[in-house]
This record gives sequence, structure tokens and C-alpha cells, in this order.
Amino acid sequence: MNAKDLSELLEAVRSGDLSPGAAVDRLKDLPFEDLGFAKVDHHRALRQGFAEVVFGKGKTPRQIAEIVRAMLRKKGSRSNVLVTRTDAKAFAAVRKVSRAAKFHALSGVIAIERSSEITGKGTIVVVSAGTSDIPVAEEALLTARLMGNRTEHLYDVGVAGIHRLLGHREVLTQARVIICVAGMEGALPSVVGGLVAVPVIAVPTSTGYGASFGGVAALLGMLNSCASNVTVVNIDNGFGAACVASCINRP
Amino acid sequence: MNAKDLSELLEAVRSGDLSPGAAVDRLKDLPFEDLGFAKVDHHRALRQGFAEVVFGKGKTPRQIAEIVRAMLRKKGSRSNVLVTRTDAKAFAAVRKVSRAAKFHALSGVIAIERSSEITGKGTIVVVSAGTSDIPVAEEALLTARLMGNRTEHLYDVGVAGIHRLLGHREVLTQARVIICVAGMEGALPSVVGGLVAVPVIAVPTSTGYGASFGGVAALLGMLNSCASNVTVVNIDNGFGAACVASCINRP
Amino acid sequence: MNAKDLSELLEAVRSGDLSPGAAVDRLKDLPFEDLGFAKVDHHRALRQGFAEVVFGKGKTPRQIAEIVRAMLRKKGSRSNVLVTRTDAKAFAAVRKVSRAAKFHALSGVIAIERSSEITGKGTIVVVSAGTSDIPVAEEALLTARLMGNRTEHLYDVGVAGIHRLLGHREVLTQARVIICVAGMEGALPSVVGGLVAVPVIAVPTSTGYGASFGGVAALLGMLNSCASNVTVVNIDNGFGAACVASCINRP
Amino acid sequence: MNAKDLSELLEAVRSGDLSPGAAVDRLKDLPFEDLGFAKVDHHRALRQGFAEVVFGKGKTPRQIAEIVRAMLRKKGSRSNVLVTRTDAKAFAAVRKVSRAAKFHALSGVIAIERSSEITGKGTIVVVSAGTSDIPVAEEALLTARLMGNRTEHLYDVGVAGIHRLLGHREVLTQARVIICVAGMEGALPSVVGGLVAVPVIAVPTSTGYGASFGGVAALLGMLNSCASNVTVVNIDNGFGAACVASCINRP
Amino acid sequence: MNAKDLSELLEAVRSGDLSPGAAVDRLKDLPFEDLGFAKVDHHRALRQGFAEVVFGKGKTPRQIAEIVRAMLRKKGSRSNVLVTRTDAKAFAAVRKVSRAAKFHALSGVIAIERSSEITGKGTIVVVSAGTSDIPVAEEALLTARLMGNRTEHLYDVGVAGIHRLLGHREVLTQARVIICVAGMEGALPSVVGGLVAVPVIAVPTSTGYGASFGGVAALLGMLNSCASNVTVVNIDNGFGAACVASCINRP
Amino acid sequence: MNAKDLSELLEAVRSGDLSPGAAVDRLKDLPFEDLGFAKVDHHRALRQGFAEVVFGKGKTPRQIAEIVRAMLRKKGSRSNVLVTRTDAKAFAAVRKVSRAAKFHALSGVIAIERSSEITGKGTIVVVSAGTSDIPVAEEALLTARLMGNRTEHLYDVGVAGIHRLLGHREVLTQARVIICVAGMEGALPSVVGGLVAVPVIAVPTSTGYGASFGGVAALLGMLNSCASNVTVVNIDNGFGAACVASCINRP
Amino acid sequence: MNAKDLSELLEAVRSGDLSPGAAVDRLKDLPFEDLGFAKVDHHRALRQGFAEVVFGKGKTPRQIAEIVRAMLRKKGSRSNVLVTRTDAKAFAAVRKVSRAAKFHALSGVIAIERSSEITGKGTIVVVSAGTSDIPVAEEALLTARLMGNRTEHLYDVGVAGIHRLLGHREVLTQARVIICVAGMEGALPSVVGGLVAVPVIAVPTSTGYGASFGGVAALLGMLNSCASNVTVVNIDNGFGAACVASCINRP
Amino acid sequence: MNAKDLSELLEAVRSGDLSPGAAVDRLKDLPFEDLGFAKVDHHRALRQGFAEVVFGKGKTPRQIAEIVRAMLRKKGSRSNVLVTRTDAKAFAAVRKVSRAAKFHALSGVIAIERSSEITGKGTIVVVSAGTSDIPVAEEALLTARLMGNRTEHLYDVGVAGIHRLLGHREVLTQARVIICVAGMEGALPSVVGGLVAVPVIAVPTSTGYGASFGGVAALLGMLNSCASNVTVVNIDNGFGAACVASCINRP
Repeated sequence: MNAKDLSELLEAVRSGDLSPGAAVDRLKDLPFEDLGFAKVDHHRALRQGFAEVVFGKGKTPRQIAEIVRAMLRKKGSRSNVLVTRTDAKAFAAVRKVSRAAKFHALSGVIAIERSSEITGKGTIVVVSAGTSDIPVAEEALLTARLMGNRTEHLYDVGVAGIHRLLGHREVLTQARVIICVAGMEGALPSVVGGLVAVPVIAVPTSTGYGASFGGVAALLGMLNSCASNVTVVNIDNGFGAACVASCINRP
Repeated sequence: MNAKDLSELLEAVRSGDLSPGAAVDRLKDLPFEDLGFAKVDHHRALRQGFAEVVFGKGKTPRQIAEIVRAMLRKKGSRSNVLVTRTDAKAFAAVRKVSRAAKFHALSGVIAIERSSEITGKGTIVVVSAGTSDIPVAEEALLTARLMGNRTEHLYDVGVAGIHRLLGHREVLTQARVIICVAGMEGALPSVVGGLVAVPVIAVPTSTGYGASFGGVAALLGMLNSCASNVTVVNIDNGFGAACVASCINRP
Repeated sequence: MNAKDLSELLEAVRSGDLSPGAAVDRLKDLPFEDLGFAKVDHHRALRQGFAEVVFGKGKTPRQIAEIVRAMLRKKGSRSNVLVTRTDAKAFAAVRKVSRAAKFHALSGVIAIERSSEITGKGTIVVVSAGTSDIPVAEEALLTARLMGNRTEHLYDVGVAGIHRLLGHREVLTQARVIICVAGMEGALPSVVGGLVAVPVIAVPTSTGYGASFGGVAALLGMLNSCASNVTVVNIDNGFGAACVASCINRP
Repeated sequence: MNAKDLSELLEAVRSGDLSPGAAVDRLKDLPFEDLGFAKVDHHRALRQGFAEVVFGKGKTPRQIAEIVRAMLRKKGSRSNVLVTRTDAKAFAAVRKVSRAAKFHALSGVIAIERSSEITGKGTIVVVSAGTSDIPVAEEALLTARLMGNRTEHLYDVGVAGIHRLLGHREVLTQARVIICVAGMEGALPSVVGGLVAVPVIAVPTSTGYGASFGGVAALLGMLNSCASNVTVVNIDNGFGAACVASCINRP
Repeated sequence: MNAKDLSELLEAVRSGDLSPGAAVDRLKDLPFEDLGFAKVDHHRALRQGFAEVVFGKGKTPRQIAEIVRAMLRKKGSRSNVLVTRTDAKAFAAVRKVSRAAKFHALSGVIAIERSSEITGKGTIVVVSAGTSDIPVAEEALLTARLMGNRTEHLYDVGVAGIHRLLGHREVLTQARVIICVAGMEGALPSVVGGLVAVPVIAVPTSTGYGASFGGVAALLGMLNSCASNVTVVNIDNGFGAACVASCINRP
Repeated sequence: MNAKDLSELLEAVRSGDLSPGAAVDRLKDLPFEDLGFAKVDHHRALRQGFAEVVFGKGKTPRQIAEIVRAMLRKKGSRSNVLVTRTDAKAFAAVRKVSRAAKFHALSGVIAIERSSEITGKGTIVVVSAGTSDIPVAEEALLTARLMGNRTEHLYDVGVAGIHRLLGHREVLTQARVIICVAGMEGALPSVVGGLVAVPVIAVPTSTGYGASFGGVAALLGMLNSCASNVTVVNIDNGFGAACVASCINRP
Repeated sequence: MNAKDLSELLEAVRSGDLSPGAAVDRLKDLPFEDLGFAKVDHHRALRQGFAEVVFGKGKTPRQIAEIVRAMLRKKGSRSNVLVTRTDAKAFAAVRKVSRAAKFHALSGVIAIERSSEITGKGTIVVVSAGTSDIPVAEEALLTARLMGNRTEHLYDVGVAGIHRLLGHREVLTQARVIICVAGMEGALPSVVGGLVAVPVIAVPTSTGYGASFGGVAALLGMLNSCASNVTVVNIDNGFGAACVASCINRP
Repeated sequence: MNAKDLSELLEAVRSGDLSPGAAVDRLKDLPFEDLGFAKVDHHRALRQGFAEVVFGKGKTPRQIAEIVRAMLRKKGSRSNVLVTRTDAKAFAAVRKVSRAAKFHALSGVIAIERSSEITGKGTIVVVSAGTSDIPVAEEALLTARLMGNRTEHLYDVGVAGIHRLLGHREVLTQARVIICVAGMEGALPSVVGGLVAVPVIAVPTSTGYGASFGGVAALLGMLNSCASNVTVVNIDNGFGAACVASCINRP
């Protein structure tokens, strides 16, 4: 029920077609979304820059393809479609549904780019520490781009070779938001955060071995960052980092 | 040393006023900050909206008062001064240094507000779950305000009484950024994140007992939030959340 | 706004005193609790068997006394009042507010019993393992009783002396619900759960030392119980166990 | 030995057929279950609503089929049979033993429904947060139904889209007990618990990644729930939740 | 009820003084301890070599003194009395109850030695690594001695100075059981275990700092001992180690 | 070098066959084992009741077979040979080396029993809680038997059906040592420990799921046992438990 | 760009071959390493004794072979090449690139030894506890040797047979640095540290089971070592230990 | 007994003053340290550069003063004396024993410097991240200096202001060893390690709050350092770091 439906109901009360008691009964049981929560869905669309994202992990190729087909069927929608944490098999199935689908093997992302409009205000820069962090960084980069943001990246600039990062400071200074992806000791966001005046979204990765505990060492490092413009998302959550960065980068 | 200085040095080499060997020596030992790192400090000032923050914990009242005195002595500075995690004794000492100092007992913050100019673009809303989360929420609120942001707050809207939160949705919808403070299960940011389209900075608090493990339960809950616009800072880090929110709220 | 208010509003629409448009405006902004969430509060009252509980920890004696005074001021209410995790000083303050207040030193509970009506269907039995578990057990017992339940208890029946428990099986068999309080290895709920056919609410306590990790060992033991009628609440949460038991014991 | 056997023995003593000494000998060595513990087994049958459950994990298809065959052989028993945590191969083996066996692939449960009598008093409602929580939710739902309870379910009502849950409040209000299944931050039980006045059994699931630590984040969230009618079972333990719910739902 | 009582009951049945039905009723409700569990208590006395031990922690001096008085009042008992984890104040109170009480300040043990009979078969040797482990070692030593065992000790023989341990091998070779107390890395039991052919009870202590985590490092080290004759008790549990050693040292 | 060798060396010095300086050189570099450490190896043989045990995990079938062949080649040795944590493939390889080898599939143990002499004093009883604990229990049982001990076992006597354990108390009372194997909550050793006066070696198993954390829950439960005659070995370490039990059971 | 290059550039400016403006342009965009950070790379070469190491884990055989090919193409370089954490498949690919490549199956290291010059000052001794620690020990040994160090090793000298270690003390006393590899309780570095006066680099290994937690028990043991000349690297990090040892062993 | 004593004993055997049998007896019971282990003690002296260090924590002022008095009484010794983790009260007591004692309040160290001879080869540089890390850094600095090393320090060069560190690179390049002290995310050693070619000893500190977990976050960060010349000591262990650095810095 939207505002128009509500108007009609009240009109019916005024005209006597509906008794106040019967109206009370209908309003009492009214599902909440009918009263305004539909706005939430609208917000969701606004927030993400496209209708829906599919979290591919744990879904069969066929399930993924069916969901994508349903998304594409929505009339008038020009949103980009994104399937994360997936693989070549799922891509083969999605490809049959849409010839426009592309597979990004490094990050395991399937993307159907129907719009390349830039709606974000500034640039989102994705920085990563080691080569093994690149899959997560790519997930973030692709997600940010398909959500309508200008993006840049700076890879393999780990803190043990600090000159590589410093040599590309001009990339950092262009950013409206920085997504900083690092495993092992997770020190990169602290160094980057100290070099810039914009928000830094830190993404710990599960790379490393032994006492890295699948990304916990990096996660703790980032939560304890001595740079005060750093926030953190879950381990390997490149997608989430891009969502937040995209929210921040709204005009 | 900036580009102009570098030109002059090279001009002197060409004119023979400076030998190449002497020039090599000067360039070789060039401190990095002379090449542009001073910008970092400028960034710091820009970022925080005031000269310096004192982390009061572990410092004596006298140490705190001396640091504040040094800050106030800087000519031409109109920045606000903030001492976090402190107490009434430290306030007594600071009060002797500045009559303008005010103590916020709930959050343990001493503030010297020298400027009330609003430089942020939108409103930062601080939301908290239970009454015991208020000290951290207040630290965030005060920090955000003294950093030049318009602020609002919404307290005691825990998820076990979801109607209280929903009854104040209009406060949430005004926000450019939301800081969400919660202990125990840390579920509030997920619910808030689902209701809005702006970034939500989640702050776990160390309230609770038993299996809350000093805020770890809330921290994990927030890192695993099913709302994709949520990022997380360290336990009880209201100050850090406000710094990030302030960065995001730049025009 | 309750159903009556809503009826009046709709009556005003019908009578023409209020235009449908104006009614839409008022209903659109209607806080959710006014539409039915008040039922939640009503439920809360029903659930707990009294108006409100004060979690005393972290509150000053004066704050506690003020909250209790406000509770007692509500006209027509005959609910019992309970302050948990408190001490003799707080009691002294509450005593000035109500002569009927009693302090249970063992559990740190202040109780004002205004009604001794039994509304629960069966008996709630509180079982505990060691003498150091008794404070938590007493918190559960008092809470259950003041929520209108018939209660029994069986203390000091740890599993290393299994005959003591077996010697009192008849107490267990009377129960509609059992609250089982244990620290150290937390084995009691498994044994009790195997002896009865009713739900067992397990409460780990923080007693013990070393590898008990403040109750974590007992908590894990209870979560892994091989008896399938056992559920668990937080460490030392005697109050919560009694709330759940009380819900279960509704007629 | 049951009460009848005992009567006969004592009758034989009275009639002189058995000397007191011989009776002492027989009674002294009497296994405990013969004296009254058989009640425990009886209780077990009563509690579960069927003779026995097979925990399939770690057993071969053949072992499972043999156990099921033995169960079905018991004369006079009309109990339902349930094999949990199993797969299609085990089903193929069980199918040869009983044509009535059905396999629920989503939850990995094999069920032989021999009785559909409803013995529970009210309705058990199973609520779950995300699509990946459904296997555990289904295990709970099936178990509850085969134990003789009326059941309802409400899936995919995660807290980041709170309107979906609120839009189906009428399902929640019908419940005598609610089983609430959620992974990630495990926030759903707190919200549900705040909306109802019945016990909520929270089941954390091992879904999620990174800092979800295989369900630990959800588990901690639930143990720290700010709703006081929430108890918790082990991670992924849909079966256990249904057992407790079934105990609670006894007339 | 013992075998004699049972005989009398059955005799009454035979004689007709008691009907079989009445006998069933009496037998059905028979508490288990009456049938033989009293033996458990007898075992307890046998096992410990004295009537009862008081765990002093968390008890007031007055409570402790009362418990000791009750113990001493038991006629005919010559058992030793032991209060562990206590202090000088409790000792002052116990001293008023028994002039024979002695306080061992290092270990916080109060002992009333009423019998110095040696009932154990061999010698229990207590070995400890550093000076800060001595309080726990002393608790073990005193407990073992008062339980009727011959004891020896070897202190300050940490593994970083292996020659000190090797220089006293003849003490180790006398042992029937060894109690090995160590904090920090907990390596001593492995080295000792490799030198002897008797059981080694390892006691981790909570000494150390940082990554010793209150004894967890030592505990894990001991559980992973590469010597196969090592078992472990809880952190700081010198008393428990002595109990087990005493059981082992039975003739 | 033993005492006799030392005598001869000194004799040579006295006779002038060896100069004091040459003697100093030989004594200075004397390996420690020559002075008495060979006793250690003797101890090892005594302790284990056979020459050597092979920890099969991580070794290839061929490596295992070679080690076993070397053991069997030692002349005069009649010791039993035991390979733990192994599988059918390794058995096939060992079988070629010794026709006497037997494979115990349940526990993954290969045994070559060359002597069935009983050298232990009393009986070692192995008790286990659930069916999934049996592999570890069997490893303990076999090890104990091949080390020359009389053994008994009592399986499937979990604490949630306490009557099954109590119904077999006579088995427990025969024991000189009890090995108690349990997963999940690890409560069995506490109950068993309370029923007997002999040492109980608790073995946590990695069975269970979710919050059992691969045996950690059981391990913590056992370390915090309220029965004071319980010690603990590593998770799944049935072999180690049998070694300790065997040491204890020496005459 | 090194100091010589810089001199030439400046000389060109003086001679008029290059205008100051053009020189500014070249210097302005100069990567930081060209201005002085090149020293870092030089240092890196010096430190490692060869151009680059490939961390093989997570790379395809083809990727590894390509990286190695690029390394070998660098003219004039005589550095050794090392690929760690790799396997036979990768070796097959590398073999096609260089016939000199050798595969060390035990440690999973591929080595191309182009120089066997000894540049280190003393000897690096690698000590390990059990046979399952040898792969990590070998990685350390090979790395140390290929970095130009004299090496020795001492394997299978676990602390439960302390005489084996003591019998080889002369090997330890030759060392300039000791690398000590151990799993399980990680006690070896403490014993070794107490026997020598040189730095001991402790490497925990992930061998063991149950409460070894993949090397955490050993790691904690080493961090808490009572020998004050012990430092620690990550679990299984034999390579890192050799790098540090190599740094220490510089002349 | 040293080599000279041994010669004399053997001389006595040769001369007939001592029979071989009597010599065997004396040698057989010889404590190990007399045969060569005294070298260990000698090593200890060499290693530390002074006779003994007192770990002050947990000792009374009087105990500390007595130990120091005993140390000073040793004739001919000119070693420096160091008491760590102590306070002003202990200093007052030590002062009475030695007028030369000095108290370093920041690090809680009491030092009696009897020799200022430099025996180390190069310079030990202590680097620290934040002001709250200085106490641990000072403990390291003082220890290194009193052990006979040339020292430098560089404080307050945290990674969030990387230019401060880079601006002082010349201090780092002088070092033979670097001790790197940092709390929070523990990132400093990685950055420093990348800038130098010498060993870096990383010391995590317990500063920070929330998810720093008393230094665990910093510890994990350091163990996972991407710089391969970094090793780690226990949390807050400035003393240990200096011991290792001192070993490395031997000529």
C-alpha cells in the first residue's frame, strides 16, 4: 500500500463506502512496507547503482543463471549486474542467458555492464599490498566501477618497500575514497591513511600462513590502525568495501 | 624543497655557481619532507578540523595541561582542542590553562571550543543501542561537532525494541553519515544500514559481560553485518568513528 | 496512538471534520508504536510479570533509587520491581524510596514484591553444581519467583558426586522447566537433561580459575551438551534464564 | 525390570516361592535402569515423539540402513524415524529398507513418517535470516514436524531488510515457540525476541566467511542478545533447537 | 538402605507384615545412595587420606573457620585438614579454632596435621622451573605430604639451564610419581618425562607476561609434550596434581 | 662409557699407560650418554613395554614398512610393535614384512603382538562416551594391552544417559587406572572420577561440530573437572593416555 | 638512477647539453628509488645474497617458470635463485628454463645455484626436534646455504631425549647463529638457548595435532622462552629464519 | 671443577696419592656443571656483559635490595647490575645498598653502572612508534647500553606519519641491529625492515585498547611481517630484545 492507496481508502471512508471500523481493521493489519518501507528498496537501488548483486558462493551454475535471467527480464532497468565469488562453470551458464556477460577470472566476478555512466563524484582508488591480495582488490575495483564510479588502482605497494608507495603518491592524492587491501600484517592502511585526508576503507585478506590465521592478523592490525581515517570491513570483503566507498562517493 | 627551489639549484649548476658534485651532495641528503611531505601535515590539519587531539589515557593531569598550553600558544590558530579518555582531575589542571575548557563527564572529554564554524556538508547522526553505550556515543558526537560538523543523535534504540528505532526514521534519513554505537550483540548497524543509503560507521563497545568478551562479540557481529554499507572501527573508538565520518562529510 | 485513537481519526474523516489528505499526512508520519507496537510493550509487561527490571551494574545508588521511584509512581501498577547486580549501598538508597524493598545479599538483588500471585503453570526448578554457583542460581530463583512462578531449588549437586543429584530426582521430576547453573566443566545440564523430559536452560558461571577462562569452558561444555533438551544463555545470566523459563511456563 | 516385574518378585517372596535371601541377591545386582531408570527411556520416547534419531554424519550408508531396519523391526512402534546430516547415497540404502523413506536434500534429512498425529499444544515457527541458513532451518522444521508439532516458517527475513520481517509479524504472533536461525552477525533473534512474548531458540549457522569464524560471530551475538527471551544452541544444531522447542510445546 | 535393611524389608514381606504393593512403593522411591552410593563417600575419604579439603578462595575468614570447626568436631577422625588458596586473615580465624593450625604463606595453605602416617608406597617428587612457580609447587608438596606421602622437591631447575636439572637426576630417579610445575613455555615436563619411567603430572602456572596469556602457553606446551608419560591438570592446580599423584602412589 | 670403562681409564693413568693430559682430553669430550644417559633408553624400553612405536601419520606405507622391518631385525627382542594413525595401504606394506601383523581398522592401528605377557599390576579400564569416540578409545585399549596390561572397556556410557554408566559400576571398581574418552562437552571423566578412587586419565576427542572446536570444548571441560583425580592428555591422544596408564600400572 | 647517473645528468646541465628545465622535468618525475631508495634495492641484493626469491605457493608452474626465466635473463647477475613452497610439477616447468635447477622434495624448494661463494662470517646451525619438522628445517638450511653461509645441521634432537642434544654440543658451540625448528611444545629453543651464547632464531612448525592448533602451541612456547637469546619467526617460516640468520652472519 | 682441577685429580692418581677407585667415586658423583657446564655460566656472563639481572616484578623492595647486595659483594666483578620492572620504592631500598644506583622512572629500571666499556661491534638502534611505547623502548635501550653496546634511538616515528621515519633514515643506516618497539597494529618493523639490511628485533607492546588485546594484534602483525629480516620477542619484552641484539652485536 502506497500513499495513493491510502488516499483512496480514506476517500472511501469519507464517501461512506467504507465504515471507520472496517478501515481500522484494514489499517491495523497493514504490512509495514506498504506504508513507506518500499522506500527502503528504492534506497537500495540508489545505493548500489544497480538492481541486485548475486553472491555466487554456494549456488549452482544453474541457480546463478536463473537469478541473472530474472534480473535482466525487469523492464526498463538499465542496471549493471554483478555475480561475485563464482567461477568459469557459472560463467558458461550465465553466458547462455546474456551474451554481454564477462568473466573476470582473477576475482571470480561475472559482470554484465549495461550502463557505463559515471554517477560518483570523485575517484575511488584501490591500493593493494602483495600479488596475492589482487583477487580481492579486483573484486573491489570491478564493483566500484560497475556502481558508477571513476576508479584507479595501485597494486603491489607493500610497506616493506615503502618507496614504491611513495613513488605513486599522486595517485593517492586524486582519491575521494581509498580502498586498501592487504594481508599478512595489514599495515598498508596505516601508512596510506597517514598520507591522505580522505576516508580509507581497509580490507584484510586471508593470504599468508601460520600466525596470519586466515586474515585475523591483518584484521586486528587494521582495527588498531594508528591512522584515524581508517575503517575496516570483513576479511576478503572487497565487494563490501566498494559498496561503502560508493556510498561515500555520492555527489 | 619544491619545484621552484629545484629549478634555482639547477640554474646555479648551469651558471657554474654550484659544482655538479656539490649539487649531488645537496640532493642526496635531501630530507623527504622537503619534497612534499610537509603536505602531509597540512592534510592532517585539514582532516581533523583542528590542530591536535590529546589521547588522555595514561597521561598525568600535569602532562595534559602542558600539552594543551602548548597548543593554545600557537599564534593565529583558532582550532578546537580536544582531550579524550580523561577525568575530572585532568580537567582541573586544564582549567587553569584555559577558562574556556569544558568537561563532559559522561564521555570523559575535555573540549576547548574556539570555533563553532560548520565546515561539513551534511549531518552526522550518532545512534546508540543501550544506555551503557552512551559514553562512547558522546565521545563520537563531541568529536564530530568540534571537527565542524552538524550533528544529531538518537540514543537507546536497541534492536530488541525495534519500534523505537523505526519511530525515529526521519532522524536517520537526514544523515550524510551515521555513526552506530552498540555493545552486546552489535546488531544495530545491520538494522540501521538496511534503512538508509549512506555510510554507517559501526563502533562496538565493551559493555556487556560473560561471552561479550569486552566487545569482541559486538565487533564480530559488525564485521559480519549483512548490510553492505557498514564499516567498523576498534572497540570503544568513538573518536576514530567521528574522524572517519568527518572525512566523509567533507564538501 | 491506539486503536481507539485511530477510530476517532477515521470518524473525523467520515464526518468531514478532517480531509482525507490531512489524514494521510498524519498517518504517514505516525510513529510505528502508535499503530500496534504498543502491543510490544504490553507483551513486555506480560512476559516479565512486572513493569521493568533495573540492571544495576554501572549505575550509582542514586540513579537506581530514582528509577525505582519512577516505577513505583505509576498508578495502578502492582508489578514486582527487581534490581539485579547491585549492592548494599544501592539498597540503602532504594530503601528510602520504598520500605518494602528487600536486599538479597548473596545474589546482589533488590526486590520489591508487590504481588505474590502465581501465574505460571508449573514449577521452575533451579539446580546448581557448586557453592560458588549459588549467587547466579539465586538471581535466577528470585527472578523466576517474582515473575509469578512456583519455584524449587536443588543446590550443590555437582556431577563428581552424582549420587547427590540422583538422590533428589523427585525434585527434578516435578519441574515444568529446569534452570541448571554450573561453572568449571559445565557438565551438570547434560546429566540433568538426560534424567528429565522438560526443557533445561543451562547457565554457565564464571567461577573456576585457569583454563575455565571466566566461564568459557562451562559455556562450551553446555553448547556441546549431548542431551538434546538443553539450551544455553550467557555466562552468569541467571536473570535471562529465569525470563526464558518464565516464558516457557506460561499457561 | 519394571514395576510389574517387581510386584511379581515380591509376590513370590510372600508366597514362599522365593526366599528373602535369594530376592536380595537378585535385587542387589539389578541394573539401575530396571528399578526406575527405564522411566528415562520412556521419557526419551515421550520427549522426542519417536523411538530414536540417527545422527548420520560419520556413518556409512550401510550402517545407517542397518540402524533404520532395526528401528522399524520394533513391534507396535508407530514412531517417526529421522536420519540427520546425511546424503543421497545413504538415502539409496535406506530406501531399500523402507519404501516410505523420503529424502530432504536441502537439509540432508531422511524421514520415515509413520504418524502425522499432532501432539504439541501450539505452533513452532522457524524463522531464518538468509538463503544460506535454510538447510539448518529445514532440519529444525522437519524435526519439529515429525515430533508431532504444528509448524510454520518464515525465511529470508534478515535484519538488514527489517520491513520483510515486520511485514509478517502475524506469523510470529501465532507461535508458542520460535526457532530463529541466522549466520553472519546473528542479530535476528534479538529483533524477533523483542517482537514476541514467547521463548526464542536461537541457532547460529556456520555460513559467512572471514571473521564469521564458522559461526562463532553469530553464536556470540546470540549469547549476548539484548532480548531476554532468547536462548542458544550449538552452531548449525537445527535438530537440537527442534527438540527443545518440542519439549516446550508439550501440552 | 544397605543389604541388611533390604533383607529385613523382604523378611517383612514374607512374614506378611508388609504387602508386596507397599514394598514396591518403598523400593521404587529408594534414594540411590541408600543402595550403595554411600560407598562413594567412603571412597572419597580413602582417596584423599583425610575427611575434607576447603577451597578457601571466595570464602570469608569466618566461613572458613566454621567449616574447619565442623571438621574437627567429627569424633574419631584423625584426618589432616587442609585449606587452600587462603591468607593470613583466614589463618587468624582458623587459629582460634585450632591451635595446631599452621600457615604456609608462600602457598597460601593452612594445614592442621593430625596424622603424619605415611600410607603411600613410594616418593612423590615435586619439580619446578622458576622461583615464581614455587607457590604452586608448595601447594602440591604440602597436599601430597598431608595425604600421607613421602615427598621430595627440586626447585629452580628451568630448562634454559639444563645442567641444574641433570645435576640432580638422582632425586628424579627416586620418584614413584613426579609433579612438574612450570610457567612460561612449560617445557620442563617434556625434559623430565624423557629422563624417567614414571608418570609425570604437569601443572602449568600463570606466571609470565604478554603471550603467556595467564598460563595458556604453558598449558598448551604441556598438552603437546613429546614425552609420552606426561598428563596435565588445570593452570595453577597444585592441589589437583597432588590428589592424582596420591591416587597413583597407593600401595 | 660406563663406570667400568672409567675404572679402566683411571687404571691406565695410574699404570702410566695414559698421561693425565691425555686422560683430561678424553674425559672433556666425553658424550653425556656415555656417563649414564644410556639408562634413559633402558627406561624408555621399560616404560613402554616394547622397543618402539611408529607414529604413522605423515609417513608413506613404504617408510612405515621399512621402520617395522628394522625393528623386527633386532635380535633377541620380543617386544610388541605398534603403528598408530595409519591405514589399510600401510597395513598391506607392513604385512609383507611380517605375517603376524594385524590391522585394527576402527582405530587405524597396526599391531604385531610377539608377547602376550601381562606385566601390569591391575586392570586398565577404558570408558567412552559416544560411538564416535570409539576409534580413540580403541587406540588406547590396544596400546594398553600391547604394553602388557590387563584391560577392560565400557563404551557408549555418555552422561546424558547416566543409568548406563551406573549400571556397570562394577567394571569401574575393578580398575587400577581408568582412561576416559569423551568428545562434545567432555563431562564423562568428572562423573567417573566421582565414582572411583583411582586415577582417571581423560582423553578429549575431536568429535562434535560447531562450538566443539575440534575437541577444545571437551579439553577445557576436562581441565576444569570438579573431580580431583582427573588428569588430561591432548585431544585424540589415546596412545598417550595408555602410556601414562601403563606407567601408573607398574607393579 | 644512482649517484653516478645523477652526476652525469648534472654534468650535462653544466655543459649546456641539458637545459635546467628539462633536468627539472626528469628529476620531478623521478621515482623515489632513483633518488636514494635505490639503496634499498641494493641493500636487498646485499641482504639476500641473490637477486630475488619466489614464494611458489599459489602460483602456477608456468608463472613460476616465467619469473625464473626473467631472473636468469638479467645480465651479469650471478645470484642464486630460490623458489620456496613448490612441487614437482613446478620443477618440471622450471627445469625447461634452466638445466641447473634442482628440486629438494623434502622441503619443496627449487634451487639454481650459480655461485657457491661463502660470504658469511661464521656457521649457521639448523637444529630440529622431530622428524616431521625436517621439511621446515631443510627450507632454512637450503636458504642459508644459497645465501652464502657455511651451514651445519642437527636433526631429531627433541627435548624428551635430552642426551641426544647434549651429546652433540660441539656442533652447537661452533655456531655464529642457531636456527631452531620445533613443533608440538616448542621447547627446544629454550634448552638450546641455555647452552650457547649466540642468537637463536626459533621456528615453530605446524606439526602435531589437537591442542597444537597448527603450531600455535609451539609459537607461544617460543615467545615465552626462559632463555633470553631467543627470537621467533612465523609458523613454518624456515625461509624467514634463514634470512635473519644470514643478516646476523654478515662479516 | 674445571680442567685444571681435573688435571690435578688425574695427577694424584698417577702419583698414587689417589686410588683409581676413589677417583671413580669422585668423578661419578660429580655434578654436571663441574665437568664442563660451568662453561654455560661463563657463557651467561659473556652473553649478558654483567653478572646477573634481577626481574623485579613480584619481588619486595627488600628482596631486591638483598639480591643486589649479594651481587655487589662478589669480589673482582666489575659487571653492571640491572633490575627491571621495578619502582621507586624498590629503588629507595637499593639506594641504601649502593649509592651508585640510578632509577629510570620511565622504564622502571634500576641500574648500577660499574663499567662503561663498549664491547659490542656496531650500534644498536632502538626505534619506537608512539609515546606510549617509550617505556619498553627505554628498557631495551638501557639494557643494550649496560651490556656494553653503543646505542642510538629514534622515537615517535609511527607509520601513520611515515615522513618522520624517512627523515631520519641516516640513523637507521648506522645500525648493526635494530630493535623496533610498537603497539597497536605493529606495522613499524615491516617498514623499517624494508629500509635496512640488518636484523630487526620486533617488540610488540601492550599499549592500545579494544581489539589490540593487550599486544596480541601487534604481535601477530610482527610475526606476519612482509619484511624478511624481522624476528619477534614476547609482548613488552624490551629486555629480551636487547639481550638478542647484544648477542648479534658481538665482535
